Amino acid sequence: MEQEILLLPEILTGLYTDYYELTMIQGYYLEGKQKEREVFDYFFRKNPFEGGYVIFAGLENLLRLLKNFKYPPKTLDYLSQQGFKDEFLRYLENFSFRGDIFSVREGEIIFPNEPVVRVEGTIMETQVVETLLLNMLNFESLIATKASRIREAVGEGTIVADFGMRRAQGVASLQAARAAVIGGFDNTSNVAAACLYDLEATGTMAHSWIQSFEDELTAFRTYAAYYPGHCVLLVDTYDTLNSGVPNAIRVGQELEKKGEKLLGIRIDSGDLAYISRKARKMLDEAGLGYVKILASNQLDEWIIRSLEEQKAAIDIFGVGTKLVTGHPDAALDGVYKISVDNDRPVMKLSENIEKMTLPGRKNILRFTNGDGKFAGDAVVLEEENGPLDQFYHPLYPQKKKQVKGFGFERLLIPVMKDGEISIPRTSVQQLSGYVRQRMEKLDDSHKRFENPHIYKVGISEKLLRLRDEVRNNIMSKYTIKNPKL
Amino acid sequence: MEQEILLLPEILTGLYTDYYELTMIQGYYLEGKQKEREVFDYFFRKNPFEGGYVIFAGLENLLRLLKNFKYPPKTLDYLSQQGFKDEFLRYLENFSFRGDIFSVREGEIIFPNEPVVRVEGTIMETQVVETLLLNMLNFESLIATKASRIREAVGEGTIVADFGMRRAQGVASLQAARAAVIGGFDNTSNVAAACLYDLEATGTMAHSWIQSFEDELTAFRTYAAYYPGHCVLLVDTYDTLNSGVPNAIRVGQELEKKGEKLLGIRIDSGDLAYISRKARKMLDEAGLGYVKILASNQLDEWIIRSLEEQKAAIDIFGVGTKLVTGHPDAALDGVYKISVDNDRPVMKLSENIEKMTLPGRKNILRFTNGDGKFAGDAVVLEEENGPLDQFYHPLYPQKKKQVKGFGFERLLIPVMKDGEISIPRTSVQQLSGYVRQRMEKLDDSHKRFENPHIYKVGISEKLLRLRDEVRNNIMSKYTIKNPKL
Repeated sequence: MEQEILLLPEILTGLYTDYYELTMIQGYYLEGKQKEREVFDYFFRKNPFEGGYVIFAGLENLLRLLKNFKYPPKTLDYLSQQGFKDEFLRYLENFSFRGDIFSVREGEIIFPNEPVVRVEGTIMETQVVETLLLNMLNFESLIATKASRIREAVGEGTIVADFGMRRAQGVASLQAARAAVIGGFDNTSNVAAACLYDLEATGTMAHSWIQSFEDELTAFRTYAAYYPGHCVLLVDTYDTLNSGVPNAIRVGQELEKKGEKLLGIRIDSGDLAYISRKARKMLDEAGLGYVKILASNQLDEWIIRSLEEQKAAIDIFGVGTKLVTGHPDAALDGVYKISVDNDRPVMKLSENIEKMTLPGRKNILRFTNGDGKFAGDAVVLEEENGPLDQFYHPLYPQKKKQVKGFGFERLLIPVMKDGEISIPRTSVQQLSGYVRQRMEKLDDSHKRFENPHIYKVGISEKLLRLRDEVRNNIMSKYTIKNPKL
Repeated sequence: MEQEILLLPEILTGLYTDYYELTMIQGYYLEGKQKEREVFDYFFRKNPFEGGYVIFAGLENLLRLLKNFKYPPKTLDYLSQQGFKDEFLRYLENFSFRGDIFSVREGEIIFPNEPVVRVEGTIMETQVVETLLLNMLNFESLIATKASRIREAVGEGTIVADFGMRRAQGVASLQAARAAVIGGFDNTSNVAAACLYDLEATGTMAHSWIQSFEDELTAFRTYAAYYPGHCVLLVDTYDTLNSGVPNAIRVGQELEKKGEKLLGIRIDSGDLAYISRKARKMLDEAGLGYVKILASNQLDEWIIRSLEEQKAAIDIFGVGTKLVTGHPDAALDGVYKISVDNDRPVMKLSENIEKMTLPGRKNILRFTNGDGKFAGDAVVLEEENGPLDQFYHPLYPQKKKQVKGFGFERLLIPVMKDGEISIPRTSVQQLSGYVRQRMEKLDDSHKRFENPHIYKVGISEKLLRLRDEVRNNIMSKYTIKNPKL
């Protein structure tokens, strides 16, 4: 079904933007600037979760919406009511995004201040898609990153399931489930997302199932009869260790007599470490060593790691709210900044030095050391073909990183050409495989939850020179009281 | 346009649910339980933001999706591929939600552990809509609450605008903008949301507008020429106080000569308190005392209050990320629990005593004291018509609140009857007005950001007796090791 359905109805795609994008492009149009060409970069400034990296996601949803970005008649009526001018609305009537996009692959590991997406096109199209691009990439990247951290906490082999739909931020649950699987989750409880993105749907049972029967044992038996091979019994409705687990054991043994096997039990409250170990022991003593224990209830990467350290007997983690909302950050701070205006490299200075941007059309070189691990990224001008001998700290260029002789790859590839998607469609499972591959090349020191080692991202000498030149030009034109560099 | 567009395509409405809801209702169906009748309650357990209350929102979006909750042929094909049985799929073919819903009004102030929505219907329909209901109500209520806190921080009269679309959790931006206006925001930058929900769209300009012109002054002049009455100039691209504000003043004075007025300037970086005061002085000295100052950049209720305390000269606040994501909580913990199974009141015990639920069909009485302020809420059985002399603390019933002679109102009203919406359509502006009205009746002590006074929510004597009876029944049936009450 995924081919057909967009995240937004077509009537809203062209309106899925900040109001100022529309007033600006009307201004550009009325000023006769509509054919001017611009380049914009997408990058973020700070790793979420005090972590060491981000998993880039949301590209596919973005590209599909860009391909369908349009202004049908009803949309134009609305804009007309809002006071937009007829002349401009006639222009929008035939508008579509015909620009070029260069991007790192969906699933790539990315770091602060790297321009991971470059958008090129007319001033009209590059400007009006800003909000849509940020909205899609910031959110899915946030959740893929959170999922990847949870995957790191459980290790390979343990199943992690997205149970977050009920506490997700509204219809964003669809994107959250997709991003979770990209980042390393196995499946999701969200059926709509599973249908849309071809994910594995999963689930257990609610307390209400149990309460709607005379007693817990009848409830368990009935479920097991209908779903013998898929049955995970929720054991904490009345009393986990004195009623739930004993009843589950009874049903497990009954299933065995029919040649079936109970899949698992689920614990959703109480001390998960203590209860899971007790339940494990009871199951094992009853000869049900194969029955898995699923735990849920306010989990995140830190709690899961603590449970693992306490040797909790948990085989499957159902992770909800904190996964799908990207708690505690709830947002990635990605921005979209102009870098070329009609072939003229431009940049933004700022009171906050870290808000200074990099001018020019750029790419990223990722270097690999002898162990095959990632050894640092250099932002370079697109025209630079590498290799480099060294690259420079962007704020303190006296600090250099030597990369002479290192292997390297170029991270930005063309993903959209003249408004048409130019990469093959990739399944979420493939993206998830790519994340796993790339994570193996990232040194563990960058994956630590506490004070992760900062991955080196620098700039090439040519870019450094261009930046200083552009900055000096601006500073000579405007009175900057405290030049920060 | 709002009448026509749902948040989800019709093909996904019936799939917008957790997988286990579908496996459970298939189980109920196969077991012949499909005509059994249930009652479920929606309530939350903990105020977000360490605050004293929640603003209830999301009802309209929920009811419209429930009215359109269905299983078209493509959806059934998908479920068939997932292994659901033909017999059940034939049942789903004609399925729609035909239940009854009783709810507090959208915009109501609500408190922890009150059953603010009651859903009645067959076991099939009441179960399968659980996830959708939680997903809609939890999110919009979270954001309306955040918006209301920000409104409290700025006071009446100051404009607050939702600028959060680019950092919102994907397509949830639509719901966030709506909820923000319900909670007290004036307008939004989100054009799609403005179109969908008839909100006021607003915005200023981006740095890229300025960078796409030769210089800042030309950029300002051009924008002012096209939008003379609506022009808010972004002054921090190069140097706020040495370039941006002086150029804005020049354009403001030029506009005056044409009989027009500059609306405002916008500051998006640096020390907002310091810069806004300086800019105010410069504007005033240039005779532009009417030009407003808009500030944005990582604002929330705490930072805004601090800015107000520092006498920052800010007239309009643009609030983004932390509003639309409900930072730092990012979720409201609302749950949906069964309270009646075929006329038999039921409840859930738990290892965690605060997870115990209240049995029976219930309503809420809200009492008012002599000053017209809210004096406490009592959860009562639906059959109780009030008044009450007193109500009881739900966990420590030796604690009582006397309400003899107090005025009271019944909060739950019928909002859906046999699957049809039974309340008149209410505009977001009306909902926002209702919130303002109700907030006036809430004592300031509950609105404090630090350690707000806990609003009293108790239960009636009849409900207390029923709960104890049901609990004793369960406990006599199951071995509960540590009866917690």
